[in-house]
Amino acid sequence: MKIGIIGAGQLGRMLALAGTPLGQDFVFLDPATDACAAALGEHLCAGYDDREQLRRLAEDVDVVTFEFENVPAETVDFLAQYVPVYPNAESLRIARDRWFEKSMFQELDIPTPAFADVLSQVELESAVQLIGLPAVLKTRTMGYDGKGQKVLRQPQDVADAFAELGCVPCILEGFVPFTGEVSLIAVRGRDGDTRFYPLVHNTHKDGILRLSVASNAHPLQAQAENYALRVLDKLNYVGVLAFEFFEIDGGLKANEIAPRVHNSGHWTIEGAECSQFENHLRAIAGLPLGSTAKVGQSAMINFIGEVPAISKLAAIADCHPHHYGKAFKPGRKVGHATVRCADSASLQSRIAEVQALTD
Amino acid sequence: MKIGIIGAGQLGRMLALAGTPLGQDFVFLDPATDACAAALGEHLCAGYDDREQLRRLAEDVDVVTFEFENVPAETVDFLAQYVPVYPNAESLRIARDRWFEKSMFQELDIPTPAFADVLSQVELESAVQLIGLPAVLKTRTMGYDGKGQKVLRQPQDVADAFAELGCVPCILEGFVPFTGEVSLIAVRGRDGDTRFYPLVHNTHKDGILRLSVASNAHPLQAQAENYALRVLDKLNYVGVLAFEFFEIDGGLKANEIAPRVHNSGHWTIEGAECSQFENHLRAIAGLPLGSTAKVGQSAMINFIGEVPAISKLAAIADCHPHHYGKAFKPGRKVGHATVRCADSASLQSRIAEVQALTD
Repeated sequence: MKIGIIGAGQLGRMLALAGTPLGQDFVFLDPATDACAAALGEHLCAGYDDREQLRRLAEDVDVVTFEFENVPAETVDFLAQYVPVYPNAESLRIARDRWFEKSMFQELDIPTPAFADVLSQVELESAVQLIGLPAVLKTRTMGYDGKGQKVLRQPQDVADAFAELGCVPCILEGFVPFTGEVSLIAVRGRDGDTRFYPLVHNTHKDGILRLSVASNAHPLQAQAENYALRVLDKLNYVGVLAFEFFEIDGGLKANEIAPRVHNSGHWTIEGAECSQFENHLRAIAGLPLGSTAKVGQSAMINFIGEVPAISKLAAIADCHPHHYGKAFKPGRKVGHATVRCADSASLQSRIAEVQALTD
Repeated sequence: MKIGIIGAGQLGRMLALAGTPLGQDFVFLDPATDACAAALGEHLCAGYDDREQLRRLAEDVDVVTFEFENVPAETVDFLAQYVPVYPNAESLRIARDRWFEKSMFQELDIPTPAFADVLSQVELESAVQLIGLPAVLKTRTMGYDGKGQKVLRQPQDVADAFAELGCVPCILEGFVPFTGEVSLIAVRGRDGDTRFYPLVHNTHKDGILRLSVASNAHPLQAQAENYALRVLDKLNYVGVLAFEFFEIDGGLKANEIAPRVHNSGHWTIEGAECSQFENHLRAIAGLPLGSTAKVGQSAMINFIGEVPAISKLAAIADCHPHHYGKAFKPGRKVGHATVRCADSASLQSRIAEVQALTD
């Protein structure tokens, strides 16, 4: 089976590494000449709106998927005329826009922080009246890794906030005094079969994910699965979906969903029976899903800006380095390591060993 | 680091899948236009004696290795002028010739079946006098998967045997009434650090490996490691070496070595902390070696001629399919599956489930 992927970054790269043993071939469409997944398949070097190349892709592959959700809706609709596209257009439309996303959570009775749509400075000021401070103003689309958002703590922070984010449609969210951030990686097959990985504890720094630790029998696992199932069924979703939650007062509030394989699921390559990458491909290819059970205790440490010397990473027991083959640049995700151990105590010490190389 | 691989079949493919996360890039030299590793790197489509392309390869990469041992000695010598080549030329020279190989075992006090060099029909007849029947006549070079050999049971089998194998240099080996066949996958780094995977029980059919089961605390593990260490140190070997033994009377007799990653080590992708493919690449790249410890209980089932439907393989719990992307052809190795389980009883039942698809 031939799989088309829109985007050829590290997620595309790890998808191709997982799918090649299934006998799948890959065609990537990505405008970057140095896209890091390109070496693992055919690379159509073209813009996401290049209809000639999109048509070529659609005619060449059996199914198309996405490495990131900020694909123009027209691209998805255009492709869907010629070839099955998973996740579907509606899932992408919802997931790429914070307003649609939060409105869907509300409709499905999934708790969220207070939120309001903001289309102007005047609306922002009304929203602040309603929600109170502190609050977070976020662009409705195109935000990632802490980009496209501004925390409003004092009344004077409000004045220029809408302009600072570029006078684009925004959402104001009440600031949540969360005690932890967790994510649930879910996968749903073409036949509706749905599986969930164990909840992951995530630690961010400067808005960028740094550490993900897979949990053991987390008390909120069932609640998270229940919420995710509502979304998956509502969207008739096919593929991997990541659901990020705030942990607060012993419960969960929905933060956002990502309609794709997710950074907080990278540990599944070594740490689960079947990785999120393989399961995404199984789902979109109409294959039976693989087990989401854990293998040992695992955590993932992100490498931001640069990857420590592979010789140093390889010297750490239980450490599995993943170098994305991307140029090093401050703030850029360029690799990660998974540490997988027999027990949680060893895991903590291995995490510390890897983190010592990143300081 | 850029790795050159001579040969771009399934072993090259699995090497590239293991090395890509280490940040390694791959260049393959293989005359086959449809070589199945080609999609995972650059493919120089050229003969193994094409000096222009060999030179191009040598200048483009940091280190060269081999997917198979039957590379002409001139190819190895030519490459070694320009770039580090692992395993070294001497290891390939010995491993590709059964006479050199067995003579080395003898020199190192490693027990072998009785053997004699056979360069003519007359020498064959003397050798039969010496060794007795039954015996196996094998070409000294180029034999694999049971090809290039003939079992001599009766005196009348001897008459045309040398001609039947093409009047090429041969070796006559005493037939060994073995109770089992085991292999040891070893890896030695540039710095001499050496590690061993658990012994593997192998089952062949028509000369082709069908099933490999990783053992638990095999009573002959230490003996096998001792023998392998003698060979590795003697050859100043770098990379993965597979050592095949006959199990007989509670001891081991050396059958042959393969100076490369080996079919009986494929289970290590899922079944060991660090796979034979990653450890081979770590070794030749001068990186610290990874752990050879088992993860659960594993076995590998080869797919000969065709791969069962991926949908059926994916439906079997604990089963990890590996499709090589090669054209199906009787007798050809086109894929394998690893089953990895928590305990040996489940393993046996999973093996049976996979084997049921291959009948």
